[in-house]
Amino acid sequence: MNIVLLSGGSGKRLWPLSNDIRSKQFIKIFKKEDGEYESMVQRVYRQIKKVDPQAKVTIATAKTQIAAISHQLGESVGISVEPCRRDTFPAIALVTAYLHDVQGVPEEEPVVVCPVDPYVDEDYFEMLKTLGNQAAKGEANLVLMGIEPTYPSEKYGYIIPRGKANLSKVDSFKEKPDAETAKQYIAQGALWNGGVFAYRLKYVLEKAHELIAFDDYEDLFRKYHTLEKISFDYAVAEKETEIQVMRFGGRWKDLGTWNTLTEAMVENTIGNVIPNDTCEDVHIVNELDMPVLCMGLKNAIVSASPEGILVTDKEQSAYIKPYVDQLDNQVMFAEKSWGSFRVLDVTADSMTIKVTLNPGNRMNYHSHEHRDEIWNVIEGKGTVIIDGMKQSVQTGDVVTMQAGCRHTIIAETELKVIEVQLGKEISIHDKRKFQLEE
Amino acid sequence: MNIVLLSGGSGKRLWPLSNDIRSKQFIKIFKKEDGEYESMVQRVYRQIKKVDPQAKVTIATAKTQIAAISHQLGESVGISVEPCRRDTFPAIALVTAYLHDVQGVPEEEPVVVCPVDPYVDEDYFEMLKTLGNQAAKGEANLVLMGIEPTYPSEKYGYIIPRGKANLSKVDSFKEKPDAETAKQYIAQGALWNGGVFAYRLKYVLEKAHELIAFDDYEDLFRKYHTLEKISFDYAVAEKETEIQVMRFGGRWKDLGTWNTLTEAMVENTIGNVIPNDTCEDVHIVNELDMPVLCMGLKNAIVSASPEGILVTDKEQSAYIKPYVDQLDNQVMFAEKSWGSFRVLDVTADSMTIKVTLNPGNRMNYHSHEHRDEIWNVIEGKGTVIIDGMKQSVQTGDVVTMQAGCRHTIIAETELKVIEVQLGKEISIHDKRKFQLEE
Repeated sequence: MNIVLLSGGSGKRLWPLSNDIRSKQFIKIFKKEDGEYESMVQRVYRQIKKVDPQAKVTIATAKTQIAAISHQLGESVGISVEPCRRDTFPAIALVTAYLHDVQGVPEEEPVVVCPVDPYVDEDYFEMLKTLGNQAAKGEANLVLMGIEPTYPSEKYGYIIPRGKANLSKVDSFKEKPDAETAKQYIAQGALWNGGVFAYRLKYVLEKAHELIAFDDYEDLFRKYHTLEKISFDYAVAEKETEIQVMRFGGRWKDLGTWNTLTEAMVENTIGNVIPNDTCEDVHIVNELDMPVLCMGLKNAIVSASPEGILVTDKEQSAYIKPYVDQLDNQVMFAEKSWGSFRVLDVTADSMTIKVTLNPGNRMNYHSHEHRDEIWNVIEGKGTVIIDGMKQSVQTGDVVTMQAGCRHTIIAETELKVIEVQLGKEISIHDKRKFQLEE
Repeated sequence: MNIVLLSGGSGKRLWPLSNDIRSKQFIKIFKKEDGEYESMVQRVYRQIKKVDPQAKVTIATAKTQIAAISHQLGESVGISVEPCRRDTFPAIALVTAYLHDVQGVPEEEPVVVCPVDPYVDEDYFEMLKTLGNQAAKGEANLVLMGIEPTYPSEKYGYIIPRGKANLSKVDSFKEKPDAETAKQYIAQGALWNGGVFAYRLKYVLEKAHELIAFDDYEDLFRKYHTLEKISFDYAVAEKETEIQVMRFGGRWKDLGTWNTLTEAMVENTIGNVIPNDTCEDVHIVNELDMPVLCMGLKNAIVSASPEGILVTDKEQSAYIKPYVDQLDNQVMFAEKSWGSFRVLDVTADSMTIKVTLNPGNRMNYHSHEHRDEIWNVIEGKGTVIIDGMKQSVQTGDVVTMQAGCRHTIIAETELKVIEVQLGKEISIHDKRKFQLEE
């Protein structure tokens, strides 16, 4: 089975755990049987592999997520990198061309596309296999999954099938309705559109060539930024007449809000948290070292991360987005391809960060025009390269770098460094990257 | 007027703003007319000076509070330092000896004692003057302030006067009663005992000599740790027959709990806080740089400091103490005589702190047996002394110190330093102080 996981945007609705560069699908919030925590993407990947150990999983995503995906899933997944965000039709066209031209997937093989963040059981992934098999038959160009509605939601688009059979042709698509209209749809047997569908690779490849002038994957990648933003539903699905839908009645949760996310938590608290026994229906997720003490709260969510602190009534949590949009989004913590960093202190003319490099990894070789830097190695062993000169470093070593000098650090073991940045205008944009001659 | 302010203990009930070394009386929580914030001790001092610009104010306190008092009140107040905590009788005996032997206050002069943390208006301080004047007359050995009860509180001790006149003899003292008994007391004209009283200096000096064998202030200071822990009420007031009480009917609030503290806040939020408009009766005090977003809360208190985060229903906030007792009380922020420090990061074998030195100040000259240290100067100018060698430092300079070496840093301007500590057992107890030969 070829599965494409669409890994979307920034997820401000789960602030402060997610932010501009750290998406909700990477938050480790689900407790596994062994007591460890896994993220949405790890959970989905584990479930896919359980149902189909041979599944070929490809993630379609932005460059900013590559590091987190590699950390969480290792190197065994394919990644189709979108040079910029252009909605689902260009993304699916690109990943389809990637499967064909880079991965060598034959044109007749089915591809199943699904979002990376549903909270579901294994029957959902069994269903994906069934969808793929159905697409392979060629009875229809697209085979959608239709989710049995559990209430007349105003949040989802609806698929109206011709009849109530398990597999049927699609009659029409409906935009998010009001609750009353939703009830009428459901009475007609309508299903939620969860963004899951299967097709034979050549179908989307041909559609892509119809709608976009390009030669191959590389050419499409190159001109990706020029493409129109348009959804796959709008560009393709809603216009297709040879289209079927299969009903899915298993558990399906869209974990886009704090409310639904906390429903999926196995335990009510994660991290250094003390809830007193007068708390009722309270979920607390604390990523900071400092303790969170909660007393007498009801139906509330408390979450603390280096980005900030959220305290909200559960019902109100759905309305978070405009408030997060207001915030000054200085990124205080981020996973990078080589490890992670956390901002510890900011003054007018300095910033102090803690850098953790994974063993064998290194930063880009780079320089800054407007700031000096000091590295204080607090744990581990490695090598620094400063203007071409190599030097071993270990716990206790200090390296000072003037503005303009080229530098990198390579971790032999896990390496922790307190980096002090000094200058008038400290900005992530003040960075030039260089090729390292070794 | 000689006023003694008793500045008490650690105030865990206002965690996370107060902790073992930072007491509630120093939290800047009261907004002044000019928009700046002041602490309880600053507010009380300002009010005293307004009512009596000549008032001689002496604070009786522990060594740990000297830095905060100097920062907040400057050098104009006297400080009687208690070498250790020994309850109110030894503390009042010591400060009385201090006033007599160190400050030269004549024996006939009245002294007024009051806690440092009442939330009151100026009429309260007018009343202190009146108490002192009454004590000066010598009609009684002790003149107490009795606060008109506003409800049958179970939290306070009661003074039963002989009659309901403004000034009357005291009939008896009553321990904290239950609400029913409190009602009966109030029906008899009982008053709350707010711990405020006046006496002629020689009265307490003589009492002290009666109950403790000592020569003078210095001798008493020296043997202070050997004294029995006993309250002034128990040792003196309750046994005194020549004792009067004056009724006080003005505003008087005991700011010992979050509930009463927030009642005294002029605005509902302090710091980087975004409350949405569905919050009702919510008070938020945020001392961190990161934002706190609150949505849909009712009757709640949220407070964040480097020590931790509290989210509590207002009613529940009264029960905080046992939960705070449970916490691992690593001090994450502290004011010191020379400035302040804040812990930024802790790993198994390192600690990174930010040190701020006030201009003209310096740390003790000291060494550590088990840790190396690195200073990264991020702002300001000063001088370091390492094993007797002086060296100027400024922004960008790095100083490394091996375990065992003696070191200090002296601020010329305000000086900010990122200090990286490295070693197996980092502890505040690993410190030897030395005399600096200059």
